[in-house]
Amino acid sequence: MRITTVGLDADDTLWHNETIFRLTQDRFRGLMAEVAPPEQLDAKLAEIEKRNLRLYGYGVKGFTLSMLETAMELTGNEPPGRLIAEILAAGRQMLTEPVEPLPGVEKALAELSRDYRLVLITKGDLLHQEQKLAASGLGDLFAAVEIVSEKDASTYERVFARHGTGAAEAVMCGNSMRSDILPALEAGCFAAHVPYPLTWAHEMADAPEGHPRFAELHSIGELPGWIQSLG
Amino acid sequence: MRITTVGLDADDTLWHNETIFRLTQDRFRGLMAEVAPPEQLDAKLAEIEKRNLRLYGYGVKGFTLSMLETAMELTGNEPPGRLIAEILAAGRQMLTEPVEPLPGVEKALAELSRDYRLVLITKGDLLHQEQKLAASGLGDLFAAVEIVSEKDASTYERVFARHGTGAAEAVMCGNSMRSDILPALEAGCFAAHVPYPLTWAHEMADAPEGHPRFAELHSIGELPGWIQSLG
Repeated sequence: MRITTVGLDADDTLWHNETIFRLTQDRFRGLMAEVAPPEQLDAKLAEIEKRNLRLYGYGVKGFTLSMLETAMELTGNEPPGRLIAEILAAGRQMLTEPVEPLPGVEKALAELSRDYRLVLITKGDLLHQEQKLAASGLGDLFAAVEIVSEKDASTYERVFARHGTGAAEAVMCGNSMRSDILPALEAGCFAAHVPYPLTWAHEMADAPEGHPRFAELHSIGELPGWIQSLG
Repeated sequence: MRITTVGLDADDTLWHNETIFRLTQDRFRGLMAEVAPPEQLDAKLAEIEKRNLRLYGYGVKGFTLSMLETAMELTGNEPPGRLIAEILAAGRQMLTEPVEPLPGVEKALAELSRDYRLVLITKGDLLHQEQKLAASGLGDLFAAVEIVSEKDASTYERVFARHGTGAAEAVMCGNSMRSDILPALEAGCFAAHVPYPLTWAHEMADAPEGHPRFAELHSIGELPGWIQSLG
């Protein structure tokens, strides 16, 4: 099997992301402590995020707006002083958080980029994802960057047709079963799951047991070896 | 001169956009009437939008966050009841506004799509722009869609290299001198300016006088004829 192209997810595959959302949500719990207990707050925020996904898509700006809507609903539209300003500040801070590659990422990508065309495939805010890639220092290793609004099988077909030699000769690697692995397999790609300690509930799904084009890896460091083993 | 590819801006070139921002800003003035006179509000909002552009980019979600920051600053972080909820609702409404092509757009694009490869090139929120294109009914006329975080000469070089036969054989058409015309000319494209009655101050710039690859058109209906005249 000839592999020409390797697609990589960005958030929680190349650098921390969910951790930053969790830390912000902890901060939000603190800000709302006198308004709602943490469980009630988390449930309301999850409900509002889900309701807004179709409208706001993925990313920090939509999350900030969802935190604000949650605060308004739980305070009966009478937020205590400074609460709104603090939420706005928390969102701004997420957007300026420093970006550092996860352990092993730089080495694995440098190795892969010698033999394959690397394509970054990620959801989220367009500008913010471009800024994170620039800040990560990994940008030069990628032949192409695709920031997409949804990751389904047709997304992978389109991206690997455009930037490679088609899905059948591509490997997709990421931390989300639901977004990175299952639709890529459906499109005909090979797919390697590299779990991240935290995964957003929305991105959870079962592993495809015994699938001939799937691998579960412990870290991205194992990716070059697995791809070579396909040859 | 062989033209193979026509790039089109979306907001205020194919459908109304600035009008929706202006109507929302009017509504914001009403909501803030007891806090600040309209001139002070507009000046503060413009200042905050400009400050946030690097962080939020273009689009409705960033604009909503900028309205919220403006409201917080002008009320000393003590917004009157419901103000924040009303701003959030105004932002949500912008995202669900119906999309209708501007007069002459459908006919011009149908004609152009017979002879040239059409590429939509637009800034803004990724998901929202995709949704507007779908809602406009114009999606099938385009060979490619590029939603970008910034429109400079290198953007046009890259997009027309990827989706056409290079900038020298491409025409760019849009309502913004600053974003659609000047950088496209710099990249080596032909460029046609179709003004929109309202243009965001940030997008204003002088027309390139006497430029051999530039045309000022009265409406998009004149675009097919101008492109043919280049041949």
